Amino acid sequence: MSKKLKIVTIGGGSSYTPELFEGLINRQDRLNIREIWLVDIEDGREKLEIVGAMAKRMVEAAGLDWDVHLTLNRREALKDADFVTTQFRVGLLDARIRDERIPAKYGMLGQETNGAGGIFKAFRTIPVILDIIKDMKELCPDAWLVNFTNPAGMVTEAAIKVGGWKRTVGLCNVPIGSYKMNHEAMGYDKDDEKLFHKYAGLNHFHWHRVWDVDGREVTQDIIDVLMDPESEITKKHMVKNIKALNFSMEQVKDLGMIPCGYHRYYYIEEGMLEEALEAYEKGETRAQVVKKTEAELFELYKDPKLNYKPEQLSKRGGAHYSDAACELIASIANDSRTVMVVSTQNNGTITDLPYDCIVEVSSVITAHGAEPYNWGSFPSAARGQLQLMKAMEEVVIEAAVSGSYAKAIQAFTINPLIRSGEKALEMLNEMLIENKDYLPQFKETIEALESK
Amino acid sequence: MSKKLKIVTIGGGSSYTPELFEGLINRQDRLNIREIWLVDIEDGREKLEIVGAMAKRMVEAAGLDWDVHLTLNRREALKDADFVTTQFRVGLLDARIRDERIPAKYGMLGQETNGAGGIFKAFRTIPVILDIIKDMKELCPDAWLVNFTNPAGMVTEAAIKVGGWKRTVGLCNVPIGSYKMNHEAMGYDKDDEKLFHKYAGLNHFHWHRVWDVDGREVTQDIIDVLMDPESEITKKHMVKNIKALNFSMEQVKDLGMIPCGYHRYYYIEEGMLEEALEAYEKGETRAQVVKKTEAELFELYKDPKLNYKPEQLSKRGGAHYSDAACELIASIANDSRTVMVVSTQNNGTITDLPYDCIVEVSSVITAHGAEPYNWGSFPSAARGQLQLMKAMEEVVIEAAVSGSYAKAIQAFTINPLIRSGEKALEMLNEMLIENKDYLPQFKETIEALESK
Amino acid sequence: MSKKLKIVTIGGGSSYTPELFEGLINRQDRLNIREIWLVDIEDGREKLEIVGAMAKRMVEAAGLDWDVHLTLNRREALKDADFVTTQFRVGLLDARIRDERIPAKYGMLGQETNGAGGIFKAFRTIPVILDIIKDMKELCPDAWLVNFTNPAGMVTEAAIKVGGWKRTVGLCNVPIGSYKMNHEAMGYDKDDEKLFHKYAGLNHFHWHRVWDVDGREVTQDIIDVLMDPESEITKKHMVKNIKALNFSMEQVKDLGMIPCGYHRYYYIEEGMLEEALEAYEKGETRAQVVKKTEAELFELYKDPKLNYKPEQLSKRGGAHYSDAACELIASIANDSRTVMVVSTQNNGTITDLPYDCIVEVSSVITAHGAEPYNWGSFPSAARGQLQLMKAMEEVVIEAAVSGSYAKAIQAFTINPLIRSGEKALEMLNEMLIENKDYLPQFKETIEALESK
Amino acid sequence: MSKKLKIVTIGGGSSYTPELFEGLINRQDRLNIREIWLVDIEDGREKLEIVGAMAKRMVEAAGLDWDVHLTLNRREALKDADFVTTQFRVGLLDARIRDERIPAKYGMLGQETNGAGGIFKAFRTIPVILDIIKDMKELCPDAWLVNFTNPAGMVTEAAIKVGGWKRTVGLCNVPIGSYKMNHEAMGYDKDDEKLFHKYAGLNHFHWHRVWDVDGREVTQDIIDVLMDPESEITKKHMVKNIKALNFSMEQVKDLGMIPCGYHRYYYIEEGMLEEALEAYEKGETRAQVVKKTEAELFELYKDPKLNYKPEQLSKRGGAHYSDAACELIASIANDSRTVMVVSTQNNGTITDLPYDCIVEVSSVITAHGAEPYNWGSFPSAARGQLQLMKAMEEVVIEAAVSGSYAKAIQAFTINPLIRSGEKALEMLNEMLIENKDYLPQFKETIEALESK
Repeated sequence: MSKKLKIVTIGGGSSYTPELFEGLINRQDRLNIREIWLVDIEDGREKLEIVGAMAKRMVEAAGLDWDVHLTLNRREALKDADFVTTQFRVGLLDARIRDERIPAKYGMLGQETNGAGGIFKAFRTIPVILDIIKDMKELCPDAWLVNFTNPAGMVTEAAIKVGGWKRTVGLCNVPIGSYKMNHEAMGYDKDDEKLFHKYAGLNHFHWHRVWDVDGREVTQDIIDVLMDPESEITKKHMVKNIKALNFSMEQVKDLGMIPCGYHRYYYIEEGMLEEALEAYEKGETRAQVVKKTEAELFELYKDPKLNYKPEQLSKRGGAHYSDAACELIASIANDSRTVMVVSTQNNGTITDLPYDCIVEVSSVITAHGAEPYNWGSFPSAARGQLQLMKAMEEVVIEAAVSGSYAKAIQAFTINPLIRSGEKALEMLNEMLIENKDYLPQFKETIEALESK
Repeated sequence: MSKKLKIVTIGGGSSYTPELFEGLINRQDRLNIREIWLVDIEDGREKLEIVGAMAKRMVEAAGLDWDVHLTLNRREALKDADFVTTQFRVGLLDARIRDERIPAKYGMLGQETNGAGGIFKAFRTIPVILDIIKDMKELCPDAWLVNFTNPAGMVTEAAIKVGGWKRTVGLCNVPIGSYKMNHEAMGYDKDDEKLFHKYAGLNHFHWHRVWDVDGREVTQDIIDVLMDPESEITKKHMVKNIKALNFSMEQVKDLGMIPCGYHRYYYIEEGMLEEALEAYEKGETRAQVVKKTEAELFELYKDPKLNYKPEQLSKRGGAHYSDAACELIASIANDSRTVMVVSTQNNGTITDLPYDCIVEVSSVITAHGAEPYNWGSFPSAARGQLQLMKAMEEVVIEAAVSGSYAKAIQAFTINPLIRSGEKALEMLNEMLIENKDYLPQFKETIEALESK
Repeated sequence: MSKKLKIVTIGGGSSYTPELFEGLINRQDRLNIREIWLVDIEDGREKLEIVGAMAKRMVEAAGLDWDVHLTLNRREALKDADFVTTQFRVGLLDARIRDERIPAKYGMLGQETNGAGGIFKAFRTIPVILDIIKDMKELCPDAWLVNFTNPAGMVTEAAIKVGGWKRTVGLCNVPIGSYKMNHEAMGYDKDDEKLFHKYAGLNHFHWHRVWDVDGREVTQDIIDVLMDPESEITKKHMVKNIKALNFSMEQVKDLGMIPCGYHRYYYIEEGMLEEALEAYEKGETRAQVVKKTEAELFELYKDPKLNYKPEQLSKRGGAHYSDAACELIASIANDSRTVMVVSTQNNGTITDLPYDCIVEVSSVITAHGAEPYNWGSFPSAARGQLQLMKAMEEVVIEAAVSGSYAKAIQAFTINPLIRSGEKALEMLNEMLIENKDYLPQFKETIEALESK
Repeated sequence: MSKKLKIVTIGGGSSYTPELFEGLINRQDRLNIREIWLVDIEDGREKLEIVGAMAKRMVEAAGLDWDVHLTLNRREALKDADFVTTQFRVGLLDARIRDERIPAKYGMLGQETNGAGGIFKAFRTIPVILDIIKDMKELCPDAWLVNFTNPAGMVTEAAIKVGGWKRTVGLCNVPIGSYKMNHEAMGYDKDDEKLFHKYAGLNHFHWHRVWDVDGREVTQDIIDVLMDPESEITKKHMVKNIKALNFSMEQVKDLGMIPCGYHRYYYIEEGMLEEALEAYEKGETRAQVVKKTEAELFELYKDPKLNYKPEQLSKRGGAHYSDAACELIASIANDSRTVMVVSTQNNGTITDLPYDCIVEVSSVITAHGAEPYNWGSFPSAARGQLQLMKAMEEVVIEAAVSGSYAKAIQAFTINPLIRSGEKALEMLNEMLIENKDYLPQFKETIEALESK
């Protein structure tokens, strides 16, 4: 690893940027960085300036000579980049608030990666990622695209299959948490690296199995500990944005795999929906809460003396995301062969899914990208839902790329968190109209809807 | 076709028996019948005697020398049988009433082949079909099993995969209706046989495409006619037990295939649920209505002068079922190579589904069974749901055979018509307890639930 | 079938043309023909005129008003065609003689569809078929391409996958013969249509199974009769160009399927090779014999009184080919739903082979093309060779299209009838040089070889 | 790794045993060994005593307290074993001599893992391995079976699929050599571990691709160096028992993967056959040479002062085999997660092959066994041959288990190194008769052949 790296972060004005810088600084021995470019759009200029200034302070405090650039000129930033990370949010948090609140009005779940909310986030994000790739083909044809913009699975699939950018890796923070939690469940320190994990599925829809150093599968042992409603370990590690409802112990044990937190939307739909509707009533949907937290964070970031990641950021949720990105960059740059859980091309890793789709699986990270451990097939109960989710993702991507209203209806019809029928169609129409500014591909459909 | 046939009907006391006899009589030229045995259980003795007497009158009126036997001794009936048809209902209509009413109480859909109702019908029926097969292996090892007991797909899969009875064909009446409807939609007489149809999917979950005699695909043309809310043709051909809600025209056109009536449960779930809950409130669920109709039918059947199928039977729903069975028997007996839509082994016909599962597809009926037309793969939007349904069926069969409570929870968790969570589990428990008499395999679970 | 058809035959000067006309005339009731165009190239002008004149006499003798056109202008002929049949031979019989004799010189098998000969026939033919398709896209975009130019499987795969012409059907004469032979073996008249046949595999590399009208599989019974070395039935039906060596009875019975005659090249390679080398020594390879027969046929055809297909044509070999083509045309034109064995898209019919490849399978012929009966998977012993043959076909097509010398070497390396090594490479080089005039795509390679 | 291990070696009297002990001694820090049992049969008693005494001297010289037991009682040895390695040879080297010489007499290749020789080695070995597994189920149900008895792929498949012993890993020495060779080809020291290798295929029929630390694929670069006929590196690393014929550079470059040495049998069949026939004429087939070498080795081993692996053993061929076994044992015992190339269950790793077959692939070795890197599908030219080889292996295993003569003929018919026909059948018959003592499963067939 002799070459000095240029790293570009699209959506650089994000409140996560300090975590990203902390992650890079922590890996300074493995990362030979020349420059880091934080890119944002006009609407994010203020945030970019605040968090960018802070990032510079962090680099300086660490005694590093990395050049940190802030810019609204994406093309300038991309020129000759080695790594491009994406953490942008089209339509900002207000779009997410709509993604959550409109479905709730119709008595349905809206969520950033699941349900109607996830579909619309994909509709807004996929055209932008394809546009970024168009620039990359011209300006940095050898760069790696490290995506952690949600819905990360669909965005990564669009980047690779539609955009044709093979050097894309999608990231998820969820496995890092469960990895630590499982170690604790088995009596290890959370940072021990003893247990062997195998994850497979889709982004926010994966399961895992675990073995110990004696070759014994300990998946069921971990389930016994973690499904215990009184378990302190579970409480401690819950993903911030998912209510800590308990899975059915019988069901999970029968499954023989540990579901991810997001499986609550599918295994305990009723409870998750109730919780979402309550939050809606109180004006405290996740996005609304996050918006407040973010405002507070940016107040902190303004402090010219702050030159480290503040404790409060961890309340924001999404912990480990930026750290995962830094680890991925370091692993590629150094051919480290670290095992990470990433979204990458299936190529038969999961035999139940299309050969050329994107899956999220335990992979060895090499200088030439992710090499997944083979997984094989799933037991029936997991297989069916997984196949439905992938098909739904495919339909969403088709709709996002083509702007086809019919495909959007298909996506709403088959999404398991949307109850199909009249109300679903009304909800779709309202969401299209409310996202008008961010959905150029649906322009004609939206105009037709508005004129009705 | 020289051999004289012995036909056995399990559940011979059914109100459908006259349709079955009408079908056999209509095919007297192609069916060289020696004897027909109507078998029932003690609880069905009265009905068996009424409808059996009427069946004998029908045969006599037709001037045929077929021996019609009524018996409660299944083993005697099965001895040396050539064809065994199944139209029994474990727990009678009262069980179906519970299948519909308990879910409604929890705000969910219960239905004979879909949702919680279909799962419990499978739980009750599969052990009985396996028991029948055990007898058949001993008493009539070369007989064909013609199943039209619902849920026909799962029962057929259990018979072939678990019971190991390869000579099983599952039947559905739905395609016959749509076949006629499509001819009318294209301006033909309903009984013309001009259009080329290809059906594929699962029982009560299939789609079809249609071509005309010039080789033009007319699927979209038929959709245009049939999806028209004012279409007289659609109204006329609606399946009796499915509310005539309109599909989304955009969605179906995008699909490029014509869904079956039961797809309304998945494509217009909200409306179907509302309708079911209304019927529940009024005490007019489908089973309750049918129970009344049946009582009236049996009153009619008692008339010693009635020697033909009465008009009123067509109101019962399920028209064409018995006729399909007769056509199937005649086709096998004569190696007729008729094209029918049947449940049979996949063997790669639908590449999206497991090789050894049961699918419902257009097949040529030969003396050695069904030879399906190859279908291939489905577009994403259909593929995902189809794969989920098949996986769900597999889990239901596993639960039905093993009596595993955990598998029953799995089935309830992934069934798309059941909203997972606390209420779903309560509903499952109540249904288990209420079906106690018909679920010996779940005995321990039920006792444990009762003692809580 | 009201529309009057325009049928075009590329390679119209072939000695088979009288059989084609006989086939069309025999089906005059099902074929509403307006005009038939026989197309050939300058080198074939004389033959075209002779056989074309005779074709006109045949039509006249039949009292039909069909217009028969002879032309060297392919584009004129293709304009608005309904059916295009191909029976051309690039390089004429002299090329086939080389295909057979050069390999023999190296101690190897050369044969029109197998071994080095088949590979070179593909190299010469595929660019021409792609060129024809280019014209068809412009001049007759709705026409059906009925291919019986060998190697029919590869040519059809190139037409559909590379040329993108979905309305292509490849034909083989072999199944017609075995169909008749099997009926005789089971005691029927050869023209009875009692037995149910299912064929699957590739062109000249397929197997079949057979059932009788009572549903009993009679494949093993037929093997018993046909594998009997003294069987009169086998002798009578042998394909003209394949030596009547006996398969190993044990092997074929274990296979449980009846191989086609061409399987002798793979199951009795040694004997077939010996026979080919003998013929080579005597100057009597198949092509040399055929060349003589053809010359005699054309002498006959010159007779201005001959207005029917002469008996001698049947000695030519390839009987039933043109008849199969006529049957196919009539079936498509009339949506007859006849069952024929054709080369068509796999789409999962044979699960052991790629989804999008071309297979040869029993299919129902409709107005919209071939609808194959599903086959599923093969037993190991057949599966492995079948998969190798398909892979070899794919490599040959890649080489034929790209002119890649490396791909040509790959094809020669993996072809099971070519012993890989030095001699194989020399043979390849000599064949490239000797086929120089017909392989524009390999121009550079050939020039480089020549200058060595 | 606290538990003290019991290691059992079946075929302990092999000349390789010193390499095995050297490998164990070299890993003494990672291997907590209690006892090592060398098992052999009566015929091997003398060798066992010689090499066993030497093994004891080696352990003593290393100052280790491992108990080394020599026994003819396999069951006593297996009791409570942790690892069972197999290096036995049914019929000793004389059987291998026959495997090589009989085919040569018929002008064909006989070889220990390929062609007729490999088939017969499988016939002799598989029943014995299944018998060992029967004992293991009873005596050491948690032990790992480390197989390096050839043909290692088929023996491993039989152990796992037929024997049901999931804890089996098959080993091959070939990849270790190529790994070192590739490092040298790229300018590294042979023991550097810089390059990332991915191997996939079957035992003695695999290919690999290589990437460097900058993520660049260097497969073609390595081909350039290694295919150079003058390359010193290639010469140095040639597998001992394979003639150093040169592959066609064009073919291998087109393949895009590096073949293994055994591919010479398939890519340069002619040259390999010539070489084998020459060796046959001179009485110097590989087995004959090895027999002489072995005699010399045992003379050396008798020296009571020799307490280290003598240099001469490396001439024996098969270097690295025992070392690979030791590395595998150490990796399992320590959950080392080392990457090795092993024969293990496919489970979709190679999508072109059956899900449940055995493949040889790069795998991470954990305490619970091999976790393969996913591979996906192969390009056509490799795919076809690979699929044929696997099908052939399946047929060989079926024959070996059932003793079916018909299956044996099938195997001989489809094996690409056997020219099918009369001579092949004669050769099969002769080999059956000559292996009479080692093929109880073929007893009836052999008696029938003898009485002809």
